[in-house]
Amino acid sequence: MPTKAYAAKDASSPLGPHTIERRAPGAKDVAIQIEFCGVCHSDLHQARNEWHNTTYPCVPGHEIIGRVTKVGASVTRHAEGDRVGVGCLVDSCRACDACKSGMQQFCAKGATFTYNSQEPGGGTTYGGYSQAVVVDEAFVLRIPETLDPAGAAPLLCAGITTYSPLRHWKVAKGQKVGIVGLGGLGHMGLKLAHAMGAEVVLFTTSPKKAADAKRLGASEVVSSKDPDAVAKHKGSFHFILDTVSADHDINPYLSALRQDGTLCLVGAPEKPLAVSSFGVIFGRKSVAGSLIGGLEETQEMLDFCAEHGIVSDIEKIRMNQIDEAYERMLRSDVRYRFVVDMSTL
Amino acid sequence: MPTKAYAAKDASSPLGPHTIERRAPGAKDVAIQIEFCGVCHSDLHQARNEWHNTTYPCVPGHEIIGRVTKVGASVTRHAEGDRVGVGCLVDSCRACDACKSGMQQFCAKGATFTYNSQEPGGGTTYGGYSQAVVVDEAFVLRIPETLDPAGAAPLLCAGITTYSPLRHWKVAKGQKVGIVGLGGLGHMGLKLAHAMGAEVVLFTTSPKKAADAKRLGASEVVSSKDPDAVAKHKGSFHFILDTVSADHDINPYLSALRQDGTLCLVGAPEKPLAVSSFGVIFGRKSVAGSLIGGLEETQEMLDFCAEHGIVSDIEKIRMNQIDEAYERMLRSDVRYRFVVDMSTL
Repeated sequence: MPTKAYAAKDASSPLGPHTIERRAPGAKDVAIQIEFCGVCHSDLHQARNEWHNTTYPCVPGHEIIGRVTKVGASVTRHAEGDRVGVGCLVDSCRACDACKSGMQQFCAKGATFTYNSQEPGGGTTYGGYSQAVVVDEAFVLRIPETLDPAGAAPLLCAGITTYSPLRHWKVAKGQKVGIVGLGGLGHMGLKLAHAMGAEVVLFTTSPKKAADAKRLGASEVVSSKDPDAVAKHKGSFHFILDTVSADHDINPYLSALRQDGTLCLVGAPEKPLAVSSFGVIFGRKSVAGSLIGGLEETQEMLDFCAEHGIVSDIEKIRMNQIDEAYERMLRSDVRYRFVVDMSTL
Repeated sequence: MPTKAYAAKDASSPLGPHTIERRAPGAKDVAIQIEFCGVCHSDLHQARNEWHNTTYPCVPGHEIIGRVTKVGASVTRHAEGDRVGVGCLVDSCRACDACKSGMQQFCAKGATFTYNSQEPGGGTTYGGYSQAVVVDEAFVLRIPETLDPAGAAPLLCAGITTYSPLRHWKVAKGQKVGIVGLGGLGHMGLKLAHAMGAEVVLFTTSPKKAADAKRLGASEVVSSKDPDAVAKHKGSFHFILDTVSADHDINPYLSALRQDGTLCLVGAPEKPLAVSSFGVIFGRKSVAGSLIGGLEETQEMLDFCAEHGIVSDIEKIRMNQIDEAYERMLRSDVRYRFVVDMSTL
């Protein structure tokens, strides 16, 4: 099925219109007409070959919201007309320990990612900057109709990336939680940790975002450029979620953790992070990482968001504004996620 | 009570005889005639002011084994003639969350360490390189009579430092555990993890220690200088205990962890460790730290060692050999812990 899309043809040219082939839906497949697609920093990394593994043409996009247009004969979970979502994963082996425990992102054979991944049957996957997509029903999420569909798109990556570690490390009422960075990930982390009942403190290099942060659920905003301000929180946090992907010093945050506290990285700075051994030894602290989340947990997150009325704060753009959006993303000039209105393709 | 001891008088002179004052036992105190004292690398750091906080004269030693010579009127846990031990801690506030949960090493007011610490009543604490010590009964451990007393001395620091994280991260049968480094800490970690039922692999820069390591419980010995040998273990370890205090690259060990695995530091390299963010994000892994253990857990460890017939592999020395022992420790020329026979003082 020839399908309209928007693709990077090489690492340096602007993205542009392109036609891709989508498979005809098989027995377990769901065909989706895409309404909205969120813009993740990974899209930019991949379009510009910054991870040195891009296959061109590359169609980014893994925060996909749409309507089911057709289902295969054996599909039971979704029906024509349903609003559904597709996140970072479109397949996995389903047989390894990780898959069987609902952690498909860590599939031992390597999960199939939504774009720039090898299809099990051959060929490259193409993402959500397109008119339609065909995905196995096991990797299609139900999007509650009460959620604004454009605002829900970033939940599929930014939402689950922050929800999963908050849940895994059991963030709850009575706890003090730090969020480092107020971008696409950070603003979701803030909303979600607040909705889980925690007292949430935001660490940001842009104190001018303070009013926004408080509106999003922060009880306090601390300038991460002010060592004294950070030091005031010494030994007080149960959990800190670090969403920053630029190089930065995490040791002040380790110091801000309580005994047995965890600092979890979901941003991925390119250079290794310097970790003081004393910083983890005193207080039996941990530096951990977390990667998106599994399918079951993603559905749980979407249902949690519906229950708490949470979507992403977004700025809607037209498809042909994508290069400009990438440039603005690089300047952190977005509050807090771009979402492409796919009707503009 | 004037008490014979062996002290560092400054950062560069050899240690030598010195007389210290021990308090007369109070109602809750236990007076102990010291039989053996293990030699920990911290002793050397402190004697030579390598942590820039040494008060001279300094009497090191926090792996103390002896016999009770007198107890205060209210002492209930120990009796004259009992074999007892004192580790790194001799007091703490007993009121903070850490103390109340049996984690006195993380006392919010700062625990009183066995040497070079401020006594609550004023003055500096003096360690086990001495004839006798007076300690509150709550900080005195029972040493099972079945344990060789000289071999048991290092359990009080090297033993609990490795036992505590192995227990905290629930090492058990069916798991694969790595120990990095075969020194005083590493050889105890090996014995303990093996006794807990785990399959234990030793990573060492000295493959000539392989036969020893197997005798101590390792099922396999891997040269940490051989990247291919380490890489063969990719994704296989539940837990890795890193006992190395020299600067080293921990990222190959992160790669050797399974999903949700933890690398725990108990050695304390001076320079910050470089941690790849991808190394923890993929597989939701953790880099953690651990510091000795609380009193209750130390007793549990001693009882565990008695049950499993575990003591440290030691080389007994005379008190006046301490400077030579420090030099040999610096060359890793010890299998695997020096213990001072205090009758030679």
